[in-house]
Amino acid sequence: MYKVDLNSDLGESFGAYRIGCDEEVLDFVTSANVACGFHAGDPAVMNSTVLTARQKGVMIGAHPGYADLMGFGRRNMSVSKADMHDYVLYQLGALHAFLRAHGAILQHVKPHGAMYNMAAKDKALAAAICAAVKEFDKDVILLGLAGSKLIEAADEAGLRCASEVFADRAYMEDGSLVPRTQSGAMIEDENEAIARVIGMVKNGVVKAVTGKEIRVRADSICVHGDGAKALAFTKRIRTALEAEGITVAPLCSFIK
Amino acid sequence: MYKVDLNSDLGESFGAYRIGCDEEVLDFVTSANVACGFHAGDPAVMNSTVLTARQKGVMIGAHPGYADLMGFGRRNMSVSKADMHDYVLYQLGALHAFLRAHGAILQHVKPHGAMYNMAAKDKALAAAICAAVKEFDKDVILLGLAGSKLIEAADEAGLRCASEVFADRAYMEDGSLVPRTQSGAMIEDENEAIARVIGMVKNGVVKAVTGKEIRVRADSICVHGDGAKALAFTKRIRTALEAEGITVAPLCSFIK
Amino acid sequence: MYKVDLNSDLGESFGAYRIGCDEEVLDFVTSANVACGFHAGDPAVMNSTVLTARQKGVMIGAHPGYADLMGFGRRNMSVSKADMHDYVLYQLGALHAFLRAHGAILQHVKPHGAMYNMAAKDKALAAAICAAVKEFDKDVILLGLAGSKLIEAADEAGLRCASEVFADRAYMEDGSLVPRTQSGAMIEDENEAIARVIGMVKNGVVKAVTGKEIRVRADSICVHGDGAKALAFTKRIRTALEAEGITVAPLCSFIK
Amino acid sequence: MYKVDLNSDLGESFGAYRIGCDEEVLDFVTSANVACGFHAGDPAVMNSTVLTARQKGVMIGAHPGYADLMGFGRRNMSVSKADMHDYVLYQLGALHAFLRAHGAILQHVKPHGAMYNMAAKDKALAAAICAAVKEFDKDVILLGLAGSKLIEAADEAGLRCASEVFADRAYMEDGSLVPRTQSGAMIEDENEAIARVIGMVKNGVVKAVTGKEIRVRADSICVHGDGAKALAFTKRIRTALEAEGITVAPLCSFIK
Repeated sequence: MYKVDLNSDLGESFGAYRIGCDEEVLDFVTSANVACGFHAGDPAVMNSTVLTARQKGVMIGAHPGYADLMGFGRRNMSVSKADMHDYVLYQLGALHAFLRAHGAILQHVKPHGAMYNMAAKDKALAAAICAAVKEFDKDVILLGLAGSKLIEAADEAGLRCASEVFADRAYMEDGSLVPRTQSGAMIEDENEAIARVIGMVKNGVVKAVTGKEIRVRADSICVHGDGAKALAFTKRIRTALEAEGITVAPLCSFIK
Repeated sequence: MYKVDLNSDLGESFGAYRIGCDEEVLDFVTSANVACGFHAGDPAVMNSTVLTARQKGVMIGAHPGYADLMGFGRRNMSVSKADMHDYVLYQLGALHAFLRAHGAILQHVKPHGAMYNMAAKDKALAAAICAAVKEFDKDVILLGLAGSKLIEAADEAGLRCASEVFADRAYMEDGSLVPRTQSGAMIEDENEAIARVIGMVKNGVVKAVTGKEIRVRADSICVHGDGAKALAFTKRIRTALEAEGITVAPLCSFIK
Repeated sequence: MYKVDLNSDLGESFGAYRIGCDEEVLDFVTSANVACGFHAGDPAVMNSTVLTARQKGVMIGAHPGYADLMGFGRRNMSVSKADMHDYVLYQLGALHAFLRAHGAILQHVKPHGAMYNMAAKDKALAAAICAAVKEFDKDVILLGLAGSKLIEAADEAGLRCASEVFADRAYMEDGSLVPRTQSGAMIEDENEAIARVIGMVKNGVVKAVTGKEIRVRADSICVHGDGAKALAFTKRIRTALEAEGITVAPLCSFIK
Repeated sequence: MYKVDLNSDLGESFGAYRIGCDEEVLDFVTSANVACGFHAGDPAVMNSTVLTARQKGVMIGAHPGYADLMGFGRRNMSVSKADMHDYVLYQLGALHAFLRAHGAILQHVKPHGAMYNMAAKDKALAAAICAAVKEFDKDVILLGLAGSKLIEAADEAGLRCASEVFADRAYMEDGSLVPRTQSGAMIEDENEAIARVIGMVKNGVVKAVTGKEIRVRADSICVHGDGAKALAFTKRIRTALEAEGITVAPLCSFIK
């Protein structure tokens, strides 16, 4: 039987600043990646996001990022391996405190933005992240880009790990995402995006931007909740997956 | 038999900025209050401070403060009870991650600077701090100013709590500290300071600035490690306490 | 002939976070208070806000605040007079650079949030702000709460100053605003709000929350642009003022 | 007649954190690069640094950096050209406010750390910096690494520009600095360092790490003031230059 997780980045508001329709998207996803205060999120936002996710039965993961609020954690920074390890550990712990206060557990860790992208390509940085996660809790799942160095490092560290795919992004032949700056980076057609996602989950393949079919493992699909259109698409994806007999369930229920 | 703890604020460096002789002071104290990244400290500093404290057998506590690095957490801020709760929870969790990574436990929590002072006088803020600590771990010790609202709130919350005294500070008749802006706030004479500390530990009394003897509970003495003079004084206090037959031991060994 | 300025707080977005309908509100106001990066705003937001305001012919002022992005500069902080002076000078200068780059001039300075409120009541802090403004440019207009210590301090410093009133806020008998935490703090009825504003501009009086008429000087009316309702109300105020024969014009055109 | 400027990075303290012997180094340099609050420095530090430099007759420049206090502005960040422009403009303006308050002028701008290094190699980023400087004040001198893209961009922008050399650093054949991570990056021998500096000023040449003589323009020598040894070396350099008949004078006195 096919199983897949739907994850979304949440808790990205900060102080007086609101981003995302967290309440609504939590009705459709099975895993929430909660920002930890470095690139987005603040303690009050973290507390309320954890509470809401828990009330809606959504599993929670930490979404650590670079300490670059002005750049929303999307800008590459030349961070050392030791600092990377410490930044991840700090953020995991901070989020974990809210989970503990609300009687929830930390299901997974998914790095954010530039940290996610850099770790996808740099094995040493990826290993630093995995070491931090393992030192914190050896049973936590590492969620990273399918086929990336981060997944490789998590495997080698003996961590449970889950491969993430994107419904709305085109892939290179090597399994990496087509950079947003290139044309054709986004899958604009929703029907095509959904068909691709189903193909990834059921057959483990997707057509790269070159036309060649490549293998890709899809344990979790990243969906968005910023705006009515994104929400509607998220809902469509979930409905389509279920219509195909694919069970939408949180990572912890099927990742070994 | 008399017992007392010696605590010091540590891990207050940040990035390229160094403050304090942490290595040295860790040779004399029994409890370390480690800054958690809001008013001082950063993830790398926290990691190395926890490691060093653990290697030297010093028990570790969280030292949460206001998110005011520019003011070193010493400036009062009108923070709501809900925010106070969330700020404390966040910082406890962040520090705890490093403890967990190094196989250490969180012995205590002592608020820093303005957070400490405001909680000493404002019962509602104090209760918000205690709630956060209790939700995180009901066995953690709350370390606060002897006779303060923070101790009162910790008692009412059913937390283990420890009363802190200062060797180098004068006391008002109500047990609060004479503000540093007033003359006579500091006990300049080291012999007098040591005699006062011994009196507080053995007899539970100290002479207020008015000359009147007041009762004060001394579970822990706050000492400083910023500079050679402070270090030498810390060493003298410890030697003097032990010469009086007072056992210097970490809070966890005698706080019920 | 009657003249009044309409001012609004603008440029409060930060990084990926958007707040306010700056484009739209700039069609109705005559003066823009631009956030300077401490409580809100960032260099990119400042640059684009200055550019847009200039293109729409709106005069520009600095809107310095406390370095408390998490609290949006709305939380009181115990800042020293010297620090207050330096914080204001820093922020004035930062905004001024964008004005200079776009060939615009700095019309006024209006402190934000807690800085505004604290300076309204604390003469020494108010004087520190005025000193910074004067050192920077003795011709800049200080915009503060009508009847406040800030206006008093600006007068004494020999600065040009302008008194601000609020259409949607109730007043105490002493001219201060009824705190938002009290019932009756807001004037909910739009017609009443507009009538009050016209009375303040034409007659220099308004009915306090106690029912007593008090004198209040209205050089500028603070309006909001966060949302469709606020924008519509801003438009109504402007139309109503003009229908009464009141000229809506920037501060620099009539403040001596 | 030979002329050269001695410059040093100053005003890098932050809040309770002290770095550098600013008072002392200001007795030997002719130009001070003052941190502007992003990578180091705060408004109070900027104010006092400007005041001291002015009292000692040292010319002042802005030392803008990345908003990365935790990394002291030394970590590369993928900042866009537009953001780079705005970050520089913001920081120039902030420093300028203190100069204006103290009746001083802005002599030069020298980017800090990673901003300096990235602009040395990336012409587009360098051009963004130069555009900001020029928009702010077309007469300000741009101080950058000799032979770098930053100097090239400043030339093309029509800015006055000054080439900086390092006494204690080895050079590659292309005029760039040997990275600190490589052996031989530092010139450890003080006599050798001084001889090299004199050669650069008088003959415009230096021996690269490969042994080949390369051309290098030396308008200003970067010296350090962090610690007694650095101070003593700075003093030695100045004495040696003057003994060679080289006039040590601020950039503004000889840069066209």
